[in-house]
Amino acid sequence: MEIADWRKKIDEMDEEIVQLISKRAEAAKAIGELKQKSTLPVYEPARETEVFEHVKSINPGPLSDEQLVDVYIRIIDVMRMLQRRDS
Amino acid sequence: MEIADWRKKIDEMDEEIVQLISKRAEAAKAIGELKQKSTLPVYEPARETEVFEHVKSINPGPLSDEQLVDVYIRIIDVMRMLQRRDS
Repeated sequence: MEIADWRKKIDEMDEEIVQLISKRAEAAKAIGELKQKSTLPVYEPARETEVFEHVKSINPGPLSDEQLVDVYIRIIDVMRMLQRRDS
Repeated sequence: MEIADWRKKIDEMDEEIVQLISKRAEAAKAIGELKQKSTLPVYEPARETEVFEHVKSINPGPLSDEQLVDVYIRIIDVMRMLQRRDS
């Protein structure tokens, strides 16, 4: 396969990734609303650690656990911003 | 739905997201190998801009385009590291 073919595949994967990240964001938003009702804090470090441990445990490679967690730190960051924006 | 139910859903979505990001990384690695053979540079800003424009164009919300691109900046970062590691 040529670079252009791989890039076409990557574009298709990005469409799925964007869909999933957006659905994940909708779920985070729903949790944010429940947190507001129950006065739970937006920042819950124990849950964030749980998410990082989960993604590391299912990492098939080729990214290192650290690289995958780096991506997830950003994902969690923007989701937390989303929960805050609604408060 | 309770917070625990949403979190279960999020864990399931993370399993799909990790699979897709890993497949995307495999494709980036393949491109990295082709780049080495053809002496193309690892860093190609025009392609990166194309990826950012693409994900913005398919963003269904609730994340802002900026938040989604923030996630993608990190994704592209770790993929570029992966291409460099093999060189």
